[in-house]
Parts: sequence; structure tokens; C-alpha cells
Amino acid sequence: MITMSPRPATATAGKAFVPIDPDYEARVRASFGRQGAMRLIGARLSALRPGYCAIELPFRDDLTQQHGYVHAGIIGAIVDSAGGYAGFTLFPADASVLTVEYKLNLLAPAAGERLIAEAEVVKPGRTLAIVRGEVYAEADCKRTLCAIMQQTLIVLLGKADG
Amino acid sequence: MITMSPRPATATAGKAFVPIDPDYEARVRASFGRQGAMRLIGARLSALRPGYCAIELPFRDDLTQQHGYVHAGIIGAIVDSAGGYAGFTLFPADASVLTVEYKLNLLAPAAGERLIAEAEVVKPGRTLAIVRGEVYAEADCKRTLCAIMQQTLIVLLGKADG
Amino acid sequence: MITMSPRPATATAGKAFVPIDPDYEARVRASFGRQGAMRLIGARLSALRPGYCAIELPFRDDLTQQHGYVHAGIIGAIVDSAGGYAGFTLFPADASVLTVEYKLNLLAPAAGERLIAEAEVVKPGRTLAIVRGEVYAEADCKRTLCAIMQQTLIVLLGKADG
Amino acid sequence: MITMSPRPATATAGKAFVPIDPDYEARVRASFGRQGAMRLIGARLSALRPGYCAIELPFRDDLTQQHGYVHAGIIGAIVDSAGGYAGFTLFPADASVLTVEYKLNLLAPAAGERLIAEAEVVKPGRTLAIVRGEVYAEADCKRTLCAIMQQTLIVLLGKADG
Repeated sequence: MITMSPRPATATAGKAFVPIDPDYEARVRASFGRQGAMRLIGARLSALRPGYCAIELPFRDDLTQQHGYVHAGIIGAIVDSAGGYAGFTLFPADASVLTVEYKLNLLAPAAGERLIAEAEVVKPGRTLAIVRGEVYAEADCKRTLCAIMQQTLIVLLGKADG
Repeated sequence: MITMSPRPATATAGKAFVPIDPDYEARVRASFGRQGAMRLIGARLSALRPGYCAIELPFRDDLTQQHGYVHAGIIGAIVDSAGGYAGFTLFPADASVLTVEYKLNLLAPAAGERLIAEAEVVKPGRTLAIVRGEVYAEADCKRTLCAIMQQTLIVLLGKADG
Repeated sequence: MITMSPRPATATAGKAFVPIDPDYEARVRASFGRQGAMRLIGARLSALRPGYCAIELPFRDDLTQQHGYVHAGIIGAIVDSAGGYAGFTLFPADASVLTVEYKLNLLAPAAGERLIAEAEVVKPGRTLAIVRGEVYAEADCKRTLCAIMQQTLIVLLGKADG
Repeated sequence: MITMSPRPATATAGKAFVPIDPDYEARVRASFGRQGAMRLIGARLSALRPGYCAIELPFRDDLTQQHGYVHAGIIGAIVDSAGGYAGFTLFPADASVLTVEYKLNLLAPAAGERLIAEAEVVKPGRTLAIVRGEVYAEADCKRTLCAIMQQTLIVLLGKADG
């Protein structure tokens, strides 16, 4: 029988990322605060460290698709934001971040009390950053992997975000 | 000099799709009406024909990312829905549609009066359907291509949508 | 009944691309000639114009996957090259091209006498270019769409390709 | 300063996969042996366990793109095969595997003595399986992450592979 529990991609122990801008957290939180879309859907930035960002989204009826699960586009929105800010933690203070592209696989219906999108930088760079993300649905303290993402970000130098 | 106007992918004239379910429009509109997320963001289904769907989204401040443009995730949400319903027009009456995955490239900042997401089935099938989509920003009656999408849908037979 | 013929993505009439480098064709052909992988699999550059490239691949038994169709990776290889050179036609003479990422959907088994990969630039840019591609299988003068691609290229300025 | 070492996606400890077919290894190796494309490029299946597959590719001049690195399409070919066989280990004995789609991000030039593509199933299923992959370049016993992949497979029941 096939066990259905999520299995991670091959994990290689990596050195921790050291941010160029020690004040990255204030910069990320201010930028997140300007995202009207995150406020509209009720998402909040729940964890942040260099190269990593998590966003939490409590379940609401007005976030659903036709079967009552969270809409794939809303799942995409939180994991795209998580990815963008995972990358942004590593950018210089005078740079902005834009998503070049993302690709999302939906693995299970997004139901439960809340979703948690986690994203981690796989490869930072001066021009582009490559990020992977996962979205989990939490119900009764149990987590189900419901989406995975692969994303490309671009660093806009000399364009401070604020 | 490089002209910046959008250029389509190679277009081959195709025969029109003939839907299995002649009442596809009522079925799609009822399903769209159940999408809480589309209502929340103010999206409306603006055009529908076999294998094709367009969704319109008037610009609002609460749909933005940190620079005041429409959030990439919201762009993904409308073009994912447009793609899903483009496919759904061709499904049997007792089937549901789910997104397996989508991939979105962002080409230009999504600003203006409204966005229009268009999606068209490239390859229908009994189990999977493959769809392409575009998102345009309209301002002063001028359209700018701001995103393109490639998507895989799955047909859930024997699970009527309603 | 659903007709199975391929349908293009929404086509918007676009102005023709004007290349920065009038000698783009010689530059592309010289670069293609340096691709050992294209020679190994027997691919040839069959058409080229600003923002567009086609690559032809005669069927061979040593290009197959386990069922005797052309391997998805070989399909990816020719359409990735076609996309890269579609973009490269529009680059300055002293720039190189690299693929940032591509996403390929397989639509039908790649069988027949030969494959034709076509790619067209959707959005050129100073740093990135976005491209769409299709792969057709030809048998008895009939074309079947067997794959579609979406791709991001990066322009490496000041690094002539040769 | 940003450290450039690869960082994995968030890893969650998963239960091991238990294959339906205890003879999965013989089935995978026989199928791999039928892939003309893998033989042509000199790839070999280097590791296999339930839900996991690794493919090794020694560097050769005839696998290159225009700058002398391994062609993105060849990188795609080995990681697509690794993904397909990672999924195939978990399929029933009378089923075949086909790639629905894959998306590949190129992170670093693929140079060195050999490439190693690793792929792991993230979500198995009765109809679809979702897989992640990485490609490493090895030189002087040092590994560089040069590509990451996200892939969808389809299970073709009742169509034994051989």
C-alpha cells in the first residue's frame, strides 16, 4: 500500500543565509503591510528569517472555489507572497522584489482551520532569486500538504520598496 | 529598435469545440456564482463560449501588492478561474473540474482601470485538459498584456459540480 | 462531441519585431552550430525571423522513451533551443542568452516522421524575455500538436555568444 | 554577504513509501533500458528506492549548448526520466507512466565531470503523481545544485509498460 504522507524534496544541509541588510525584518514587514491583497484575504506574516518566510491564512467562506475549498488562486497568492518575501530578506536595502513567474501544483483540497504557506530561497542571486514553497492546511492540529510552488524573483536595484 | 507590443504564440486555425453538454453556460455560471473568492475580489464572468472563458476584474486598492499594482496572486486567481471554466464548458454535465497545476509569467505591472483574463482550451481530454491564458490590463481603452498562463485541469467524472 | 483539433491561445495582432542587430541570422546560426546536443540528436534550425525560431527533428529510434515515442526530455530540448533562439534574434550583438526556466506540457505521443518545434517571443525586454512554444509531430503531411511550452530567458549583456 | 550554498525546500519528515509492486526495481530497470534517449546521451540509473530515483550523466562534449555547458534540454531529459521512474516505483505492476508536464529552473551552469539528477515523489495518487527533482553538477567531488524541477505524472492503468 502507498502511504499518502507528504515527502519532501531531497534535502541537502545548507549553510544559513546571511542577509546584506540587517534590518531586513522591518523592511519586509513594512512592505507586507502595503499589500492590500493580503489584508483583504486576512493573511498575516507569521514567521521570517533570512531566506525564509511563512504566511498564515485563517479559513473564510469568502476565499473559496465552487466546492467550498480555498481557491487555487488564493493559495497561489499567499505562497507567491511568501516566496517574494523569502527572497526579499536577502536583498539590499535599496532594492525591490517582483515575481517573474511561479508554478503551483495543487495536491489536496485546501480545507481546515487555516493555511500556512512556507517559502525558502533555493538560489539567491544579484539579478534573480529562485524559491520553493509549500502550502499546508491545518485542521485539528494536523497538517496536510496541499500545494507546492517553484518561483523566480527579480531584484530591482536602486528602487527601494517603500 | 525592439517594438514592445505583445505577440501571440503561433496561431493555428482550429475547428470550433462542440460541447458535450448543451447547457454548459448555465452550469458554468452557477459554479462561478459559488466561488466566494471571485465575489470577494469583485471579479465577474464576462464572456463564455465552448473552450473559452473571460473574467473581468475592476481595479481596487485592496487587490494590490506593495507597489500599488494588482497582486500577482490575484492575477493568478482570475486566470486560473478563467482557465478552469474554459475547460469546464467542454465537460459532461455530471463532471467537476479541478486545477492540477498552473504556471504564470508576469510580463508588465497590472495597473489601469480593469484586468481581463482570457483562457482557451488547447487540448481537451477525458481525464485532463490543457489550457492557455492571458491577462490584459486596460487603461484609456488601451490593452497591455500583463501575464500569460499554462494550466492543467482534471475532469472529475460522476461528481456534478453543484 | 469534443473535436480534438488543437486550438491556439488567444491571438492578438502584434507589430513585427525589429531586431537591434541586423546580422541576427548569422549570429543565431553560428550559435546553434555550437550546440553539441542539437547535433547529437539530429536537430536542425529550419526557420528564423525576428522573435521567431523553428527547429526540426527527424524521428530516430535512439530519441525515444520506453514506449517508442520521442522522449519528453528531447521534446523539451528542441523547444527550449527554439525559444532561446527566438529570443536571441532580438538581442544586441554583444549579448548572450540563457534559459532561466521553462515549463512543458505534453499533449500527445510524439510519433511520426519528424517533430517541429516553433517558438515566438511574447515579451522582449532588456533583462528578460518571455517566450511561448509549440511542438508538432508530422506524419503523412498531417500535424499533431504534441507539446506546449512557456519559457523565461535572460539577456547576458557584454558577453558575446561566440 | 549572501552565502550561495543551496538550501532545500522545507523538509517535513515523511513515512517511507511502500510500493504496491514488490518487483518495482526490475520493472523500472527494464523500462529504463528501453529508453533510447537515455542510452544515446550516456545516462545510467544510479539509485532507486520506493518514490525515489537518481540518474547519472557523465559529461560529454556532444551534450552541450553554445557555451560548452550541458544543454538545458539534456538536463531536463535526465530529471524528467528520474521523476518518471521515481513515480513508477509506486505504480501497480500493470500500469505505465507518462509525463503530463514538468517545469525546470536552471540555477547554475552545468559543468564538471558528471550530472546527477535526483527525484522524489511528493504526492502519489491513483491517477496523478507529483514529483520534485534536483540536478547537481559534480566536479572534484564537489556538488553544485544546477537545476530544480516540479513535475506531474499520470498513471496509465491496465497498460503494462513493457
